[in-house]
Amino acid sequence: MMKLYETRVAPNPRRVRVFIAEKGLTEQVEYIEVNLQTGENLTPEFRQRNPMKKVPVLELEDGTCISETMAICRYLEAAYPETPRLLGESAKEIALIEQWNRWIDFFYMMPTGMAFQHLTGYFKDRMTPNQAWGEACKSDAEKFFAFLDQQLEGRRFLCGEQFTAADISAVCVLDFNKVIQQKIQDDQSNLLAWYERVNQRPSITA
Amino acid sequence: MMKLYETRVAPNPRRVRVFIAEKGLTEQVEYIEVNLQTGENLTPEFRQRNPMKKVPVLELEDGTCISETMAICRYLEAAYPETPRLLGESAKEIALIEQWNRWIDFFYMMPTGMAFQHLTGYFKDRMTPNQAWGEACKSDAEKFFAFLDQQLEGRRFLCGEQFTAADISAVCVLDFNKVIQQKIQDDQSNLLAWYERVNQRPSITA
Ligand SMILES: N[C@@H](CCC(=O)N[C@@H](CS)C(=O)NCC(=O)O)C(=O)O
Ligand SMILES: N[C@@H](CCC(=O)N[C@@H](CS)C(=O)NCC(=O)O)C(=O)O
Repeated sequence: MMKLYETRVAPNPRRVRVFIAEKGLTEQVEYIEVNLQTGENLTPEFRQRNPMKKVPVLELEDGTCISETMAICRYLEAAYPETPRLLGESAKEIALIEQWNRWIDFFYMMPTGMAFQHLTGYFKDRMTPNQAWGEACKSDAEKFFAFLDQQLEGRRFLCGEQFTAADISAVCVLDFNKVIQQKIQDDQSNLLAWYERVNQRPSITA
Repeated sequence: MMKLYETRVAPNPRRVRVFIAEKGLTEQVEYIEVNLQTGENLTPEFRQRNPMKKVPVLELEDGTCISETMAICRYLEAAYPETPRLLGESAKEIALIEQWNRWIDFFYMMPTGMAFQHLTGYFKDRMTPNQAWGEACKSDAEKFFAFLDQQLEGRRFLCGEQFTAADISAVCVLDFNKVIQQKIQDDQSNLLAWYERVNQRPSITA
């Protein structure tokens, strides 16, 4: 059985759990909780699985460890080709989903995660909070809500008619923004409608 | 003909140029230089191609614009299946190359880029330099040289015997580190040997 080292409350492991659920693979994975706050991800044992000391990590039956959210998703997409495609079929779809995933990673997940770490000091045992940097990141994360709202004009999902991994990434980061007191604004009607749409899926509300 | 909006001296466009060269597609692309220092990437015209205001951007013949380095590479990998594979064949290869590419993006490219921006003020017309954050990033980038050296022990290339997109990413970021006065140390012998090996390729020395 594959093993997923993850943390229930953390956004990147949630991206992988939702991806697994959308593929109908939930029962094929054993979930192992890693307590980030007490530093269970910093032990020599965990670092052998991922030298970057981050969750999620997928361990295959042969012992191979794959870290990085989208690397795990790509593994599942390639290893289970009969399950619903979430990373595109044509070259153009593949590219545009990847573009969106990277926009979300670099310009939404990173600012949100850094704002959280630098403003709350949650990981101050392992990094030095920088208040001014945290504020700059918080403001970048806030701008991404507006960007999403604008891009979703006339679109059902981020990459068009089909629900994809990009929607999973966006909703997981959006929900995580509550740790820096940010949420969808009342006038962001495209984003609100999309949020309701994705929340009709059992994978998201689980 | 496809068009690549890029900047000769910048590391992310170089990753794409090398990728294109390794696939033998150099002549199939028109290269359009964008001057980042004078802000040619901030104009309304450029923002229509990429709302994130970054190079590289690949414009297809039908006008579709793809931004994000690895999204462009994935497009080319999928659209030209008869060219050398640089992103893996099996599910495990695909995943491990993606893991490495993301390690390099998050833990090497980002710190290097941020150290450059925050320590030199190169883009101070569009962001506020934060010296302490720049120093923290520079130290993270420096640690990645040691990590690469350690991981390359007994390996020809980052993901094994085959040259892949991960090697392209690593060498482009490594070379860019000169802007923050960082390079391979004399005792990093695995890294030195790998660097010599990748520099035997015409795509890298071009
Ligand atoms: N680029 C990584 C990021 C993973 C990451 O930052 N994980 C967080 C939880 S969402 C973590 O493990 N933090 C613990 C720490 O930084 O010590 C990915 O995509 O998986
Ligand atoms: N995540 C993007 C990053 C692109 C990026 O940061 N490009 C730099 C040059 S290497 C840029 O355009 N900088 C201009 C600016 O920040 O104004 C990618 O992978 O393509």
